[in-house]
Amino acid sequence: MFQSFDAISAPDLAAPRVAGLRRLMGKRDLAAYLVPRADEHQGEYVPPSAERLKWLTGFSGSAGLAIIAARRAVVLVDGRYTVQARSELDPALFEIAQTPRVKAEDWLAEALPAGGRVGFDPRLFTLRTVETLSAALVRTGQRLVPVAGNLVDRVWAAERPAAPAGPVRVHDVSLAGEAAADKIARVQDILAADGEDAAVLTLPDSIAWLFNIRGADIPHNPVALAFAIVPRRGKPELFIDAAKLDAAARAHLKPLAKIAAPAGLDARLAEMKSQGRKVRLDPGTAAFALARQLGGRKHISPKADPVIALKAVKNGIEIAGARAAHIRDGVAVTRFLAWLDGAFRARPDHAASAGDLDEIGAARRLEAFRAETGELREISFDTIAGAGPNGAIVHYRVNAATNRTLRPGDLFLIDSGAQYADGTTDITRTIAIGQPTSDMIRAFTMVLKGHIAIATARFPKGTRGIDLDPFARRALWQAGLDFDHGTGHGVGSYLSVHEGPASISRAGMVALEPGMILSNEPGYYREGGFGIRIENLVLVRPFEVPAGGERAMASLETLTLAPIDRRLIDTSLLSAEERVWLDRYHARVAETLSPHLDTATRRWLAAATAPL
Amino acid sequence: MFQSFDAISAPDLAAPRVAGLRRLMGKRDLAAYLVPRADEHQGEYVPPSAERLKWLTGFSGSAGLAIIAARRAVVLVDGRYTVQARSELDPALFEIAQTPRVKAEDWLAEALPAGGRVGFDPRLFTLRTVETLSAALVRTGQRLVPVAGNLVDRVWAAERPAAPAGPVRVHDVSLAGEAAADKIARVQDILAADGEDAAVLTLPDSIAWLFNIRGADIPHNPVALAFAIVPRRGKPELFIDAAKLDAAARAHLKPLAKIAAPAGLDARLAEMKSQGRKVRLDPGTAAFALARQLGGRKHISPKADPVIALKAVKNGIEIAGARAAHIRDGVAVTRFLAWLDGAFRARPDHAASAGDLDEIGAARRLEAFRAETGELREISFDTIAGAGPNGAIVHYRVNAATNRTLRPGDLFLIDSGAQYADGTTDITRTIAIGQPTSDMIRAFTMVLKGHIAIATARFPKGTRGIDLDPFARRALWQAGLDFDHGTGHGVGSYLSVHEGPASISRAGMVALEPGMILSNEPGYYREGGFGIRIENLVLVRPFEVPAGGERAMASLETLTLAPIDRRLIDTSLLSAEERVWLDRYHARVAETLSPHLDTATRRWLAAATAPL
Repeated sequence: MFQSFDAISAPDLAAPRVAGLRRLMGKRDLAAYLVPRADEHQGEYVPPSAERLKWLTGFSGSAGLAIIAARRAVVLVDGRYTVQARSELDPALFEIAQTPRVKAEDWLAEALPAGGRVGFDPRLFTLRTVETLSAALVRTGQRLVPVAGNLVDRVWAAERPAAPAGPVRVHDVSLAGEAAADKIARVQDILAADGEDAAVLTLPDSIAWLFNIRGADIPHNPVALAFAIVPRRGKPELFIDAAKLDAAARAHLKPLAKIAAPAGLDARLAEMKSQGRKVRLDPGTAAFALARQLGGRKHISPKADPVIALKAVKNGIEIAGARAAHIRDGVAVTRFLAWLDGAFRARPDHAASAGDLDEIGAARRLEAFRAETGELREISFDTIAGAGPNGAIVHYRVNAATNRTLRPGDLFLIDSGAQYADGTTDITRTIAIGQPTSDMIRAFTMVLKGHIAIATARFPKGTRGIDLDPFARRALWQAGLDFDHGTGHGVGSYLSVHEGPASISRAGMVALEPGMILSNEPGYYREGGFGIRIENLVLVRPFEVPAGGERAMASLETLTLAPIDRRLIDTSLLSAEERVWLDRYHARVAETLSPHLDTATRRWLAAATAPL
Repeated sequence: MFQSFDAISAPDLAAPRVAGLRRLMGKRDLAAYLVPRADEHQGEYVPPSAERLKWLTGFSGSAGLAIIAARRAVVLVDGRYTVQARSELDPALFEIAQTPRVKAEDWLAEALPAGGRVGFDPRLFTLRTVETLSAALVRTGQRLVPVAGNLVDRVWAAERPAAPAGPVRVHDVSLAGEAAADKIARVQDILAADGEDAAVLTLPDSIAWLFNIRGADIPHNPVALAFAIVPRRGKPELFIDAAKLDAAARAHLKPLAKIAAPAGLDARLAEMKSQGRKVRLDPGTAAFALARQLGGRKHISPKADPVIALKAVKNGIEIAGARAAHIRDGVAVTRFLAWLDGAFRARPDHAASAGDLDEIGAARRLEAFRAETGELREISFDTIAGAGPNGAIVHYRVNAATNRTLRPGDLFLIDSGAQYADGTTDITRTIAIGQPTSDMIRAFTMVLKGHIAIATARFPKGTRGIDLDPFARRALWQAGLDFDHGTGHGVGSYLSVHEGPASISRAGMVALEPGMILSNEPGYYREGGFGIRIENLVLVRPFEVPAGGERAMASLETLTLAPIDRRLIDTSLLSAEERVWLDRYHARVAETLSPHLDTATRRWLAAATAPL
């Protein structure tokens, strides 16, 4: 259950692996071959058997694309990962380019002769990606060539881990809040309204939600790798490795779906094609190979996976579960914060206490407090625990080589979450280790103002995340500061901690609906100095007309319960309303969590949540 | 020069006109015929000779589409115009449908048999509109049929006003700030960079900007109707009626462009097509007919008119001109406000003074004050002058039938602007006539808070209007209120008062650049009660790192100078920063305008701008 903090693999393994891949490319007359991070299901996490990019290159980030040409190779990463890519990749083997400034087609145009064949595995790229890249390559005369059988897998061969076969467990309706049969009927109503004969589902969390099942195939996401076909009428087909299903899972699924082996999917799609069925397939998430099997774009109904929008709106039971999960998680986080504080108070000379109070130690301790709830299924993502300058690396993942002792004067940013059967959590707290500087306090207060502006926002029907995002930034902008990530992402209900379709960000064009759960996590990062982020999850509450108003407005209920470090707040920079919000939030934290805490922790929490 | 306040034409003229159109449709086997508001240039205003929609139906709004079928007809209007459409259209002849809820294709699908031919004038619809509508009609089997020669014009025949031939005047470089030859070179650089042989320009304001000319063909927009072809190298061709050009205009244009008759455009496009030229044409603004002449979408380079982005960023001379124009305009508006106030103070019994103090009288008086500057070229749009409930009609245009006497207890909303040679203005003030209610004061204060939030905003590179718009709404949203229009539009430099590409709105996806001028005009409208809007123009100032900050931020300079009614502000609802902003703004207004005012007005202004 514990997170692994292994340092990354040695880059000298990459050379023979790339050489092996190039031999296979040569035999197929490929000028280049594309190796993405994604697996067949396009999730954020992939099982070890699908960690092709990491195995081939050493790069372990959650997004990236390697392009291997005969004499050159590049790994394209986004701004989050340029530093990490430099530390993980062998510069003799790989160039590094930053997207979206450099696109795959730019590098190909520059590195390859015109007319080259660019191979790719059609199961690992979405229809949309292939279409976009194909169109972009027209000008260079290069051509995308789907290659059956993944070439990296052939080099990897016997060393490659087996595909995961984690057991499927039933997600009881007492947790899900809606019977799978009713969910399936809702999807079928959508297909009928849209005049479609069936939908192909490829996202494991869509399938988990629809059938009320959870799995254990990939880290941090309690999903089972599977595909499904939902017909407009009748029983869906679930393509899943039978080894994952015990008797209980079988009994649960029997009335809901016909079970088939994943290998049978292609034939079923071909059959639907030959029958002239109108099949809905999500061009943004479904593999190119599946679209091809259905006859290509002209023969599919290219619309979003219908489950995505349904799943995002939590029902009453899921909301009750989320509240319960957040009390439980708040107790664990509060115990952790009290422990951390106490550990430093107990040793005034802590500067010398290296070893036991470091990033890894803290992350382990937090996970242990969560495990002690007795309800932890797993953590919801690799904990980000960054002290001092490590806190300024937005997607920092501590390992043995980067692990830093917590030192007086450091800010310590810890972003973590848990998977409980009743809900998924995600919380960031930034803690002053010893005495913070006035600079840290000013920046923290600006971030807090942004956090409160989101937490207190009211907004009318049709408001999208893009419309709220600026509230999180205004105080920072006025001070000439900003942060380079979105303010919030959707969160699943005992599912993925990053869930679509809504987000609070520059790209958040989906309207926020009551029942959605999102994060509220503005930040500030000073490179080489410190990082600040304050993250709570929020629930979109129903539209109601405020007293004295005319129009119905939604509001946000903060779900996360844990103190925000009062030592980092300059109260003179807060408005009266902002002070009221923080005091009320802290009073709620203390009142809700105290009954679940031991005396010492309760006393600590009372001080940590005292009015400003 | 004065605005006309004629009541709208009697609806009983529409019946014979529609009957005449239907006869022509019958001869051509058309099941329906489309009559848009737009002319060949897709501007917001059209000359009387192009007011086809108004002539045919009686509807005088600035946007709308009539669909005439054999036995039914509809006028599609947006939410701004449903009330006006009901008052102007004969219900026996026309249905009214509201876009975007009802789209043209929806009505056609419902009203016509499958397979019908839907005629349209290919010069009055953009390429994009035709493509979108064609695609939507596929499901009903109906077909769009371009019909040469406008059918409304044939019915209109001899009664139809002549096409405008307003004189072209040179917009001197001392006002434009950049020689036309240099502007043309900048456009040609863009064409070279984009690998295009030429661009076709169809927007009169693009052409006016590019060639440093102004015209008098349509109300309120000092442009000449014309087309232009800008080749990558060499002299552009300007297709314009020679009758508009006097000797000075000819001399100015001679070194810049080859002059040709508008009728010659088609042949030139066909020639370019036959030569295989890659021609840039804006699918969103250029007529379908022109794209067809060039061989259709596959043969054009479908990109935005390159002038739009250049024109939006004002140069130093234009900015200086805008500041001067706003001082001049501020003097006229301040004289008006002082007059209005005095007129009421002088007559405590003004409730009985109907006739001379009404919406039309006030609008005329304001125009007269502007004319007295000696610099007024024309007003920049029809003045919106709405007292009491008329103020709640966002696009209210007073006429003899709706004209309302200003009564004690009314709010009076007046939105107006001027065209001066050095700049275009647009200002809205909302004035308390007599004693306002606490409800009016609360709403006005919320609108003011939104206005100030925009005026004081700082924002980083890449920020779009969509990112600022929520600041204008936050205070209203918190109170359960909102307004149903954008917060701001771009404004030209002695050009259109509504100018792209940027806007501060839900749809404002274009980044704000230093040098852009936009309006800042949040509002609040209580149907049947009153309307509030506070509008100033703002200039985007250069990116600079604020003291104590790290990142360059742009800010906004308020250009408009006129007092905001202090009697409508509840200071207890303002933050300290908001009070400071208003007091500083008022101090600047008084300081800047006072030297240009007579003693009495100066005294009035001192009181109107006293600190809160």
